[in-house]
Amino acid sequence: MNETIVSRQALSRMPAYLQYLHMIDKLGRAFVTATEVAEALRLNPIQVRKDIAAVSKKPGKPMVGFCVKELIRDFNEFLAYENVKDAVLVGTGALGSALLNYSGFSGCGIRLAAVFDKDPEKIGKRIGGHTVSDAGELAGFCRKSGILIGIVAVPDYVAQGVCDQLVAGGVRAIWNFAPAHLSVPGDVILQNENLVASLTVLSKRLAERLEQKQ
Amino acid sequence: MNETIVSRQALSRMPAYLQYLHMIDKLGRAFVTATEVAEALRLNPIQVRKDIAAVSKKPGKPMVGFCVKELIRDFNEFLAYENVKDAVLVGTGALGSALLNYSGFSGCGIRLAAVFDKDPEKIGKRIGGHTVSDAGELAGFCRKSGILIGIVAVPDYVAQGVCDQLVAGGVRAIWNFAPAHLSVPGDVILQNENLVASLTVLSKRLAERLEQKQ
Repeated sequence: MNETIVSRQALSRMPAYLQYLHMIDKLGRAFVTATEVAEALRLNPIQVRKDIAAVSKKPGKPMVGFCVKELIRDFNEFLAYENVKDAVLVGTGALGSALLNYSGFSGCGIRLAAVFDKDPEKIGKRIGGHTVSDAGELAGFCRKSGILIGIVAVPDYVAQGVCDQLVAGGVRAIWNFAPAHLSVPGDVILQNENLVASLTVLSKRLAERLEQKQ
Repeated sequence: MNETIVSRQALSRMPAYLQYLHMIDKLGRAFVTATEVAEALRLNPIQVRKDIAAVSKKPGKPMVGFCVKELIRDFNEFLAYENVKDAVLVGTGALGSALLNYSGFSGCGIRLAAVFDKDPEKIGKRIGGHTVSDAGELAGFCRKSGILIGIVAVPDYVAQGVCDQLVAGGVRAIWNFAPAHLSVPGDVILQNENLVASLTVLSKRLAERLEQKQ
């Protein structure tokens, strides 16, 4: 129905809309206006109206707004959250463990099917509700279980090897936390989460701001 | 000297350049061409040339390229990595602990001055080489120590309160990991690291790709 092309920026705002809608739904609110959503999330109302129009099947009623439950359903459907996809996590160091314990994923349409590490000390141990599997079995497991998403949380110098195993296992999207540039075939989605790069941007913006003040 | 306005995308590529330059410097390489950098990092050579031109004081020599050590110095200077800034981390849950143990920050020009939590069970304990301080002392500590950067790794429902304390303490930039929209004064830089939003973008891109195949 709604095949509007939506920008990455718009997509990245949508979890916040859903979070807010779930909150007011719990409080018993039946309707909400785009202006209220914008004010609550400190966003531009025009932007919010446009984002809602991209996912919602029904226009809002004047003065009343949108039905909260319908809007939740529309966002869930648009974000394909109801269409749960299986993922594996590779690496159970500090970052991998944090990801395992990160509560935010549960509502994202991602199910963590298995967790891998190559450290014999960790294989077989339980972390965050998962038994750690041998990284040597990664490609075989992905292939057999139809895993679509691989989360890479290993040191940078082994990241490409892990990525290659995931691709060999038929994984279609890689979420990479290693500060390394990975090479993937054209039909595999690669999304890098480079915290150093992000901190560099912050640090540089701060330096520029401080220079302006001088 | 080089006051070219550089995009966030360009900035976020620079840590990878530095990483690669340090690597070949250790291997004893004296010169490198933009094409080599582009090939090693699987980037567009025109983009790499433009990025280097934005930070480098000297043009590369034809056929020889850039002096590796000079290029490292130029990137460090441009990124203000040498101008170390003090930061505090608030929240020592799974994500906060992972950030404490994340090795990538050390080279970023950020020094973690202190770590805070409000949990009495955690205050006074050692985590990742830091003794956890009482979050009640956050604003006072930041003010007294001239802290410039606050890293927020607390649950979303307390994030705004922590942010307000950081701002009250004179912090000029906030790196927010809580999946919450924070409100800051106009002269404070806010950078959100929303993993749920990021995973949503990945999941949606994957869903679209899978639909195309059908």
